[in-house]
Amino acid sequence: MEQAVFTVNNVWMMISTGLVFIMHLGFASLESGLTRSKNTTNVLFKNTLIPGIGLLTYALLGFNLMYPGFAAGTSMDFFGFSGFGLTLPEGGETNKYNVGYTYWTDFLFQGMFAATCATIVSGAVAERIKLNSFMVFSILFVAVTYPIIGSWKWGYGWLNTLGFWDFAGSTLVHSVGGWGALAGILLLGARIGKYEGKKINVIAGHSMPLAVLGTFMLWLGWFGFNGGSVLSADPGATSRVLVMTSLAAAAGGIAAALTIMFTTKKYDLGMVLNGILAGLVGITAGADQMGVLDSVLIGLISGVIVVFAVLVFDKLRIDDPVGALSVHLVCGIFGTLAVGIFGAKAGMNQLMIQLLGVAACGATAFGSAFLFFFVIKKTMGLRVTAEEEIEGLDHHEHGMNAYNLQNAEVVEKKVKTHDNGVSKEEKVLA
Amino acid sequence: MEQAVFTVNNVWMMISTGLVFIMHLGFASLESGLTRSKNTTNVLFKNTLIPGIGLLTYALLGFNLMYPGFAAGTSMDFFGFSGFGLTLPEGGETNKYNVGYTYWTDFLFQGMFAATCATIVSGAVAERIKLNSFMVFSILFVAVTYPIIGSWKWGYGWLNTLGFWDFAGSTLVHSVGGWGALAGILLLGARIGKYEGKKINVIAGHSMPLAVLGTFMLWLGWFGFNGGSVLSADPGATSRVLVMTSLAAAAGGIAAALTIMFTTKKYDLGMVLNGILAGLVGITAGADQMGVLDSVLIGLISGVIVVFAVLVFDKLRIDDPVGALSVHLVCGIFGTLAVGIFGAKAGMNQLMIQLLGVAACGATAFGSAFLFFFVIKKTMGLRVTAEEEIEGLDHHEHGMNAYNLQNAEVVEKKVKTHDNGVSKEEKVLA
Amino acid sequence: MEQAVFTVNNVWMMISTGLVFIMHLGFASLESGLTRSKNTTNVLFKNTLIPGIGLLTYALLGFNLMYPGFAAGTSMDFFGFSGFGLTLPEGGETNKYNVGYTYWTDFLFQGMFAATCATIVSGAVAERIKLNSFMVFSILFVAVTYPIIGSWKWGYGWLNTLGFWDFAGSTLVHSVGGWGALAGILLLGARIGKYEGKKINVIAGHSMPLAVLGTFMLWLGWFGFNGGSVLSADPGATSRVLVMTSLAAAAGGIAAALTIMFTTKKYDLGMVLNGILAGLVGITAGADQMGVLDSVLIGLISGVIVVFAVLVFDKLRIDDPVGALSVHLVCGIFGTLAVGIFGAKAGMNQLMIQLLGVAACGATAFGSAFLFFFVIKKTMGLRVTAEEEIEGLDHHEHGMNAYNLQNAEVVEKKVKTHDNGVSKEEKVLA
Repeated sequence: MEQAVFTVNNVWMMISTGLVFIMHLGFASLESGLTRSKNTTNVLFKNTLIPGIGLLTYALLGFNLMYPGFAAGTSMDFFGFSGFGLTLPEGGETNKYNVGYTYWTDFLFQGMFAATCATIVSGAVAERIKLNSFMVFSILFVAVTYPIIGSWKWGYGWLNTLGFWDFAGSTLVHSVGGWGALAGILLLGARIGKYEGKKINVIAGHSMPLAVLGTFMLWLGWFGFNGGSVLSADPGATSRVLVMTSLAAAAGGIAAALTIMFTTKKYDLGMVLNGILAGLVGITAGADQMGVLDSVLIGLISGVIVVFAVLVFDKLRIDDPVGALSVHLVCGIFGTLAVGIFGAKAGMNQLMIQLLGVAACGATAFGSAFLFFFVIKKTMGLRVTAEEEIEGLDHHEHGMNAYNLQNAEVVEKKVKTHDNGVSKEEKVLA
Repeated sequence: MEQAVFTVNNVWMMISTGLVFIMHLGFASLESGLTRSKNTTNVLFKNTLIPGIGLLTYALLGFNLMYPGFAAGTSMDFFGFSGFGLTLPEGGETNKYNVGYTYWTDFLFQGMFAATCATIVSGAVAERIKLNSFMVFSILFVAVTYPIIGSWKWGYGWLNTLGFWDFAGSTLVHSVGGWGALAGILLLGARIGKYEGKKINVIAGHSMPLAVLGTFMLWLGWFGFNGGSVLSADPGATSRVLVMTSLAAAAGGIAAALTIMFTTKKYDLGMVLNGILAGLVGITAGADQMGVLDSVLIGLISGVIVVFAVLVFDKLRIDDPVGALSVHLVCGIFGTLAVGIFGAKAGMNQLMIQLLGVAACGATAFGSAFLFFFVIKKTMGLRVTAEEEIEGLDHHEHGMNAYNLQNAEVVEKKVKTHDNGVSKEEKVLA
Repeated sequence: MEQAVFTVNNVWMMISTGLVFIMHLGFASLESGLTRSKNTTNVLFKNTLIPGIGLLTYALLGFNLMYPGFAAGTSMDFFGFSGFGLTLPEGGETNKYNVGYTYWTDFLFQGMFAATCATIVSGAVAERIKLNSFMVFSILFVAVTYPIIGSWKWGYGWLNTLGFWDFAGSTLVHSVGGWGALAGILLLGARIGKYEGKKINVIAGHSMPLAVLGTFMLWLGWFGFNGGSVLSADPGATSRVLVMTSLAAAAGGIAAALTIMFTTKKYDLGMVLNGILAGLVGITAGADQMGVLDSVLIGLISGVIVVFAVLVFDKLRIDDPVGALSVHLVCGIFGTLAVGIFGAKAGMNQLMIQLLGVAACGATAFGSAFLFFFVIKKTMGLRVTAEEEIEGLDHHEHGMNAYNLQNAEVVEKKVKTHDNGVSKEEKVLA
């Protein structure tokens, strides 16, 4: 390959790496925005450390588990390991690894991906998990589960040999994260006050601006997540992927807005955000295989699915504060199957292979996550005390408030639910 | 063109597309920061859906209205349409359309531009417009008005033939959006409490950090808005445009800070933000035609203009919550005229052509926006009820608060306006 | 050089410029998040104007002081000046200045760097400095001190001739800014209430989400700060620098989290943020000279150092609201020395040269900053009145609140320190 093309490929991949990095800010903002302010420091703390933990464990272990050197298309390998740590391959850093960019770019791009898996779990178990316990889980999940499953497809393992298609990780990243989240929720239980008898209470997030900021950062980050997954700067392929990705996001947001409007008569902003993310997750498996109409349809369907998924999980009393299961697990599965339904690879045979991939990755991700969480529960404990949960994790784990607003002109919302003619506020203060 | 150069052009245009996308986060942050917290969800909702609506309508209609295939420089065409939907031109996605990047990149870059037009309107009509009504207006304005006007210059229509110069859209984007905003404000009227008798009340925004975040995102986004408008990665042209753009932003912010300081004796942060944006809008029409001194002067003048424009619009009782008219309409016009006053194209003849372009685009944009808003007003209604406006749009349209701050250590500002010796607070709580 | 390679180099440098620009948003967010809400507008105001002031003064003066045209490696020059303003060199804008990108890109990239110096000072002197006085200092420091010191190394002056190594500015940017901060703090004194008798009070920041947002923006920005300091898009060199930079940031965050955990039993989020920044500052001088293990070690050490530095400065009653001294001064010095300890240039001779560079730049930066602040103190005054400081700088300097939260559901933290059985809150309201 010509030096100039190699250089521009590498520049595009470095930019994509930066964009995937910024998704971690997106997750931090979205998850803290959609949870309560008494747990904000805690949510932020996890999301701030995860990229660091992800990069270091990936450097030590994950990268060489995920790319163990299987020969493409010739094997049915399930597991391989090419040794601890980062070592330059023969030929050095500009050895045209992956036919297009340097060894270092490859590591950093993949390392940023790895950490997103743990971040997806983070939101789902928020507001009640012990910090230490979550951190131990994260390390195990990012260092072991994610790269081994990833090697099955992207490391040229058995799923790749079978013809499984997951362009940028609807399954390998999003549903894997989603399965981890489900395992965590099942072992943790719901937050105090979420379900009372037959009643499902809404526990509102604390800051819509943060949630919106996070969603925009994630959409932007997806330019690198999907655009970088072309693994070169090929003009046709990269730009096509960006268009399909953005059309799906657009359609997802609009579909979710209309779906929730017809269901509840309110324009629910949180659902629009989930719809955008649902569209993004849905297109991720096949962003390189879809046409314009396919992408819009995948986005629309994802946007509808995500709204009902949120309602169904609530009915099942699976308490997911940020909708991570609906977005990443459900739409991750849908997006993977969509490769067999829409676009260039559509066909019953492909659909069956997609289903097999979803099932195999799902069973492994859920099984290992359940095991990790279970052992942690039995040893370190998984959940904070009721007192800590009620008062907020920020005080107990961090000894601080996330917000200290002085001199702000605060006009309190008058309390509306009166009880014996005395407002709640009056009872507290009078 | 050599493959490597084509690839790097395309990379630069994709990056620029991402940067223009992030301007939508900028507008969302700026507009919600400068309005009241009781309407924050509403403002964010609009700004979150607009990019999606923009992209989908542009794919269906706008792109082919804006680039209808006029032959450059040979016609005086006003209207053309090359058919519904996105279809790859002959030669496919890497057909070197626009001599430098792919068909997909072109669509996505232009689509991100299109949506900014509606976003400019959004802030100006905030805090009192019905959500549905605004959404219908947005679709019409982005799908029809913006691309038709755009075709006159960028689609090689009659204004281009005459020699009108608008490098990146001081007129075609910013003043067009500004005229739409003016039409909306005139039909909506001012917010309740803004003008009482002869008094002009300040209705303060609710979060300066959000406003600052938005302004920085917009400045960054302008790297793509102007830098991408070179339509290639040409090193000299792109980097020169970035320098001129940033110098104008810098000068605009400083000029506005000093102007408001000398006028009111206070360092008004909102005015500095408006000054930066004014400088950016002002340089946009001629960023490729100006030298260093020209750019600084255009920035300085824009920064002064914007401060007085804000004061004048208030005197005229034209209630623009975020200063969109002063920034986008007034400085958009100034910037377009500046092409005839400063830089490589300066001259009386050019100035007259610039004036003609401003007038033609203005009349069309204002006229069509007024028509759309008027029909909407007579059919769906345009303005929320007084009760909804006073209680806030978040409750009525969205059924939620934008903020829920628990466990925040809030030290309330003591209420200063006493009434019979009893503070407002005491009356509420005692 | 081939045109395609020149173009891609220039694209990478423009992207890096945008990333360094976004560091200013990072500083604005971090510094306002870590200080009190009554001073938020003030902090934001400074950080919003600094990039503008930086660019304009750099265009007028700084660029030509920093790159005065010393001949590389042949002289022991301390001072030079190539004239006022920006003038295209012979050969024009694409004259392959710096063997890789345009004159304009060079100016803008370096100009964005220059302004960061003042931003570092801004946080350290926050909450008590007069706005005008700070602005005058900024102009002097950015226009004179920073570029002259910079010329010693990057402008091929005497430190470069001696073999001093500071890849992207651990000393030339970060410690220089840190020395300026120290001079300011010493002449200003501590904030009211920070130190009472033997007691060191914690003055908590007002918004952890803002602080986290700022830190992520800074990490992202460092992709351009260090990645762009390669001064080309060379695939091996740029990608290697990004990996080393990110590993150091990761290690810094984790080291700081563990260090503060073992010290105080609390997971202090602010310290994690400082740890990440410490790792970034620490790797900056030698990001192109380090291997994987070196980078992780430098990050770990920086993350430990920064925690103890914060504690030591507090013991010394040097009141630095945002930890700027610990991050930028202390870790800037450590990072510079690390070039003589770790990586390709390690050796006693190099270490001595590094020490000389640290001392020379430090003495000059501190001396000039002290002089500027001293003269300002004697003429304009440096510190706001006690009344202004207590009520907040936002009211007095800006006449506004940073936040106005209406309709927010605020549940106040019940006051825990009772006094005669009556809570503080009851006394205020009853």
